[in-house]
Amino acid sequence: MSALIYCPFPDPEYAERVGRQLIEAGLVACINIGPQVRSVFAWEGVVDTADEVPCLFKTSATRLEDAIALLEDLHPYDTPAIMGWHCDAVGAATRHWLGAL
Amino acid sequence: MSALIYCPFPDPEYAERVGRQLIEAGLVACINIGPQVRSVFAWEGVVDTADEVPCLFKTSATRLEDAIALLEDLHPYDTPAIMGWHCDAVGAATRHWLGAL
Amino acid sequence: MSALIYCPFPDPEYAERVGRQLIEAGLVACINIGPQVRSVFAWEGVVDTADEVPCLFKTSATRLEDAIALLEDLHPYDTPAIMGWHCDAVGAATRHWLGAL
Repeated sequence: MSALIYCPFPDPEYAERVGRQLIEAGLVACINIGPQVRSVFAWEGVVDTADEVPCLFKTSATRLEDAIALLEDLHPYDTPAIMGWHCDAVGAATRHWLGAL
Repeated sequence: MSALIYCPFPDPEYAERVGRQLIEAGLVACINIGPQVRSVFAWEGVVDTADEVPCLFKTSATRLEDAIALLEDLHPYDTPAIMGWHCDAVGAATRHWLGAL
Repeated sequence: MSALIYCPFPDPEYAERVGRQLIEAGLVACINIGPQVRSVFAWEGVVDTADEVPCLFKTSATRLEDAIALLEDLHPYDTPAIMGWHCDAVGAATRHWLGAL
């Protein structure tokens, strides 16, 4: 089974550096780094805003936990938002590609 | 368990107003408001297009239904697209952050 | 139950053509075509990059497999990344809209 991880970064350069490390570690096969989003969030009772870069990682269900753990280590935030979920159906090429991780 | 909600809005200002209300209601911890997307959709037998703003809300599985209900109330469309799903694995900081909702 | 499909395309025009075909086939109700993302990916042992257009399709759990199969046929890549997942909660209007597929 395949899986996706959503995790915003402060900027695209940092996102690509970390994404490449996860790829080289064999924990994800791909990172899609999106254009800037505006984040509004509650943290320790205060509502704040930030400009972030949304990233989506493609992996497998078996690699998901390890990918998230390494992502948490490498992320520049002390408390990054990292959210992963299993896929229920994927294309045949995707199953083969991510299944090889 | 954490959860995500995807819901497009007509513009970023409206999205932020509603996002802040859900945060203040303690139903989500964060909204990521993305740059414009082009939507092609079928509605009552007609295929139409619109420019929308994609938004992703971070919440917990226990708050998911209430967050979606309030989002449906506050959204400017009569029939908004609001789609939520549970996460299977999240970072430790995320689990703590969203678990406090 | 509703479902989402994530699938990047090389450009927005191709994405819209294929999206419209899936809509006309009654397999999805909507495609959201996003602004360009930077992709970093591993393929056959080499790490490469590409500029892609992220697309999100809204469908139902019952149409998901057929939508993915047609998407794989129509996609311009030989080995497209196509990843679908079920929703755990949706708005009332969404349930009605996608349930009619």
